[in-house]
Amino acid sequence: MSNIYNQNLEKNSANYQPLTPITFLERAASVYPERVAVIYGKQEYNYSEFYRRCRQLASFLSKKGIRFGDTVSVLLANTPSMLEVHYAVPMCGGVLHCINTRLDATSIAFQLDHAESNILIADTAFSSLISETFSKITSKPLVIDYVDKELQFIGSKFGSYDYEEALNSGDPEFNWLMPSDEWDAITVNYTSGTTGDPKGVVYHHRGAYLLAQGNIVTASINKHAVYLWTLPMFHCNGWCFPWSISVISGTHICLREVRADAIWKAIKYYKVTHLCGAPIVMSTILDAEQELKQAFEQKVEFFTAAAPPPEKVLNDMADAGFNVTHLYGLTEVYGPAVINDWHTEWSDLTVSKQAPLKARQGVRYHALEGLEVFDSHQMKPVPRDGKTLGEVMFKGNIVMKGYLKNSTATKISMKDGWFHSGDLGVIHPDGYIQLKDRLKDIIISGGENISSIEIEEVLYKNNAISSAAVVAIPHDRWGETPCAFIELKDGFDISADELRDWCQKYLAGFKLPSLFIFGPIKKTSTGKIQKAQLRNQAIEFIKTRSLS
Amino acid sequence: MSNIYNQNLEKNSANYQPLTPITFLERAASVYPERVAVIYGKQEYNYSEFYRRCRQLASFLSKKGIRFGDTVSVLLANTPSMLEVHYAVPMCGGVLHCINTRLDATSIAFQLDHAESNILIADTAFSSLISETFSKITSKPLVIDYVDKELQFIGSKFGSYDYEEALNSGDPEFNWLMPSDEWDAITVNYTSGTTGDPKGVVYHHRGAYLLAQGNIVTASINKHAVYLWTLPMFHCNGWCFPWSISVISGTHICLREVRADAIWKAIKYYKVTHLCGAPIVMSTILDAEQELKQAFEQKVEFFTAAAPPPEKVLNDMADAGFNVTHLYGLTEVYGPAVINDWHTEWSDLTVSKQAPLKARQGVRYHALEGLEVFDSHQMKPVPRDGKTLGEVMFKGNIVMKGYLKNSTATKISMKDGWFHSGDLGVIHPDGYIQLKDRLKDIIISGGENISSIEIEEVLYKNNAISSAAVVAIPHDRWGETPCAFIELKDGFDISADELRDWCQKYLAGFKLPSLFIFGPIKKTSTGKIQKAQLRNQAIEFIKTRSLS
Repeated sequence: MSNIYNQNLEKNSANYQPLTPITFLERAASVYPERVAVIYGKQEYNYSEFYRRCRQLASFLSKKGIRFGDTVSVLLANTPSMLEVHYAVPMCGGVLHCINTRLDATSIAFQLDHAESNILIADTAFSSLISETFSKITSKPLVIDYVDKELQFIGSKFGSYDYEEALNSGDPEFNWLMPSDEWDAITVNYTSGTTGDPKGVVYHHRGAYLLAQGNIVTASINKHAVYLWTLPMFHCNGWCFPWSISVISGTHICLREVRADAIWKAIKYYKVTHLCGAPIVMSTILDAEQELKQAFEQKVEFFTAAAPPPEKVLNDMADAGFNVTHLYGLTEVYGPAVINDWHTEWSDLTVSKQAPLKARQGVRYHALEGLEVFDSHQMKPVPRDGKTLGEVMFKGNIVMKGYLKNSTATKISMKDGWFHSGDLGVIHPDGYIQLKDRLKDIIISGGENISSIEIEEVLYKNNAISSAAVVAIPHDRWGETPCAFIELKDGFDISADELRDWCQKYLAGFKLPSLFIFGPIKKTSTGKIQKAQLRNQAIEFIKTRSLS
Repeated sequence: MSNIYNQNLEKNSANYQPLTPITFLERAASVYPERVAVIYGKQEYNYSEFYRRCRQLASFLSKKGIRFGDTVSVLLANTPSMLEVHYAVPMCGGVLHCINTRLDATSIAFQLDHAESNILIADTAFSSLISETFSKITSKPLVIDYVDKELQFIGSKFGSYDYEEALNSGDPEFNWLMPSDEWDAITVNYTSGTTGDPKGVVYHHRGAYLLAQGNIVTASINKHAVYLWTLPMFHCNGWCFPWSISVISGTHICLREVRADAIWKAIKYYKVTHLCGAPIVMSTILDAEQELKQAFEQKVEFFTAAAPPPEKVLNDMADAGFNVTHLYGLTEVYGPAVINDWHTEWSDLTVSKQAPLKARQGVRYHALEGLEVFDSHQMKPVPRDGKTLGEVMFKGNIVMKGYLKNSTATKISMKDGWFHSGDLGVIHPDGYIQLKDRLKDIIISGGENISSIEIEEVLYKNNAISSAAVVAIPHDRWGETPCAFIELKDGFDISADELRDWCQKYLAGFKLPSLFIFGPIKKTSTGKIQKAQLRNQAIEFIKTRSLS
């Protein structure tokens, strides 16, 4: 539509440029060159050096032929190299592909081939895994070995280049490339996916810029925060924190392994102010032996996702000096896109009244423009009653570009103008959402929807239980009924009957598990419980039992 | 360039939407509906009401025919209505045009005609000005009267509608419009311009979103800040703070007049945390009578621009409990685009060592991607020596869309891929820029450049001087020499000879003013000194002197 405001007022190179998180590092290096950017064991360098190293690596990658849209894969732990690739790869137009280091060779081979990887930067500690992977792949990316000098056993070299040598051969004044468009891909992250081939979720520069800044804005992170890496950076690009920390010229404390002693030491010694992680990280912190727990003076913010933090954990974390904020997201929305934005007046409530509020996933990040719970058949928002179950859907600038080379899955996931998360939840009268289940994990018994999470929450209230997972098992009359997997704490014992009585105190009859299976519950490499596997396990269990 | 990452991965309505600051208000109203958004005298309303009122006003404007690219002008003081129009006008696709309330009728008439204004919302306190303006304009916009109930004398009604009635007739559920493109105009601001017609600087939704968020990120403003309106909102849309405050669900404290008693009262009573303003606002605060200065407990952040704060003012502000941050920008870059980003270690320096650091304009906002000082003839950056003068230039997403209906000026101002500010400055070895003069205010004496600001700084060190301005006057031998206008503080007296001696202590001989003119210095409606006028005044003065 033509009007006076769009005549002779076009974009030009003075008033427009693509949004990209690379500019955050460039600014930090320019304004705070001397400020410590990265600490890892005996290694420590400032923003001037960090920026220089990224430019050198980008220069090397460029010399090795990386062009716009070429994939650079990495198999790295939370070492400084992992931070560097987050800038160096996009600086030469490449697309960063971070591989979960806990995957098997077959899965890694699939990803390398699917992403048509040109270069693989791999920690030599994983060299046998790489070697096995290379026996399975069609493409043969150029391999660069990263040697972690903090490790005692560094593994054998596999690649054609040494990371540090390669980097040093690069031009420190490398004129890095802006993306040609902010919609250009910056990274690809494969979802573990319980069925079918893993899908490559593509992020772009615009989204990475907006969410990286979004973490700072939405979670009110101040200048020069000290960030401890307890979240794997291969997981949704560490929720974009490799970029966020440059926004506030903060300090990254790298951590190869999530160990209680290292965490407590870092918090005390480096005055850590922020860290992220799955609930298991909180357990690791809290379960540390008493002599490891060093008193610290600063306030520490802990961002957690994946599962609502149980009341007891929240209490214990508060007592230990941590403020816990609950986030929620998916790989498809760059990691966290939803925050339990805490109302100050809620802090005046009793702790037991705070817990259910803390358990909610919350509201949209600023960078996410739409968050709704829909009746997905009619695509109508469910009533805001905290009860009606619907599918959680996302819309906005931090929803992925789509799935790589999978236009069918892309279209299905984003049909009707919303990204369909597959998570089931409710929306409370105040607009805060709360997850109830995965769409595929819901149990339908006699036509009634039963949330497996609701039952799990009841089980977790029982002090004997360290882990609980509820899945559907087939039932002749009801279609499905709940089956509960139970992992007990050391030194505790409880029977199936006692647990059934426990559940009856809190749940309607039709929701009671018809079967309890005791024993360790298997988890994925990122600490998630895979319900599809448990369902198979339950069916096997039933078969065995009926045979015996 | 085609690659796997741009095939079948197009934008769609799930993963892309135009950036617009309207979403900040929508989020604040959704997450913090009960939180106080606006306070003005006896009026107070929360985010739910603020959002509803904006939607209602947008609905009314839409009913009155406002479509994409139509201009809605406002002549309003810092009242709640001024905040409302910042959302309501873009909500119906309109472009907001805020008029400086201190302008004369002829200037206002020019703007209304030039912007092809469709609607004018005007405070009835200005009704005689409006009436005079309407005798001069060609276009006849529909007028809506805003009655400021806090005023004793509200003026006579002039328009066809009453603001409050009009707003109340609007639909509270109005389905506000997203911009069709984030490059769509959101506001137009006329620069006062010392020569030629005023130019209409056009802002777009993308830039307003980025700078509004940029204020929060770059200045580390926390959630729920309390913001006092000592900066006129008609000035660069109040540096985008009408939108910034929604990002952090903060509270606006409106203030019609910048009076010492009202400021001190608001700081104490509403626990103000942030305010902005020209140096004159600091003087107003500091010069208040002792009984007005009420002790407050919070830390108050004061953002100032226009002129470097003198050392004494900084000291006094610190003693009074304010932390002063120096910003710099122009109408063409949405207000502030440069910040004196303070290094914590600088706070350990003595106050006299801090002052020259505080006086520097600083470094780019995150949202501004490029800031340089150029030798404008060769378009080469000047050396970073803190000495070599060059023109300050800007580049990036918060540089204006251009000048309305003035493609020649637009092209000239943004030639060579940079916005040419017309300000002269140096860049220090640490990358912080410091302004030295306006390009057109530089004095060229015997081929040497003399910065008028350098001389002014020396004059300001003299305790007798309340205001000083130096301009060039013609000189037969040297081409130009400096002439100093001096306004003395009450009760002080100093002669031209004494001042010349004073200057000699700090300045090279060729920089000494050859003429001192004593008396009040005329300032513009926004408190700026217009050097073009002073130059004329000086020439008149010389003529008169030679005649007498």
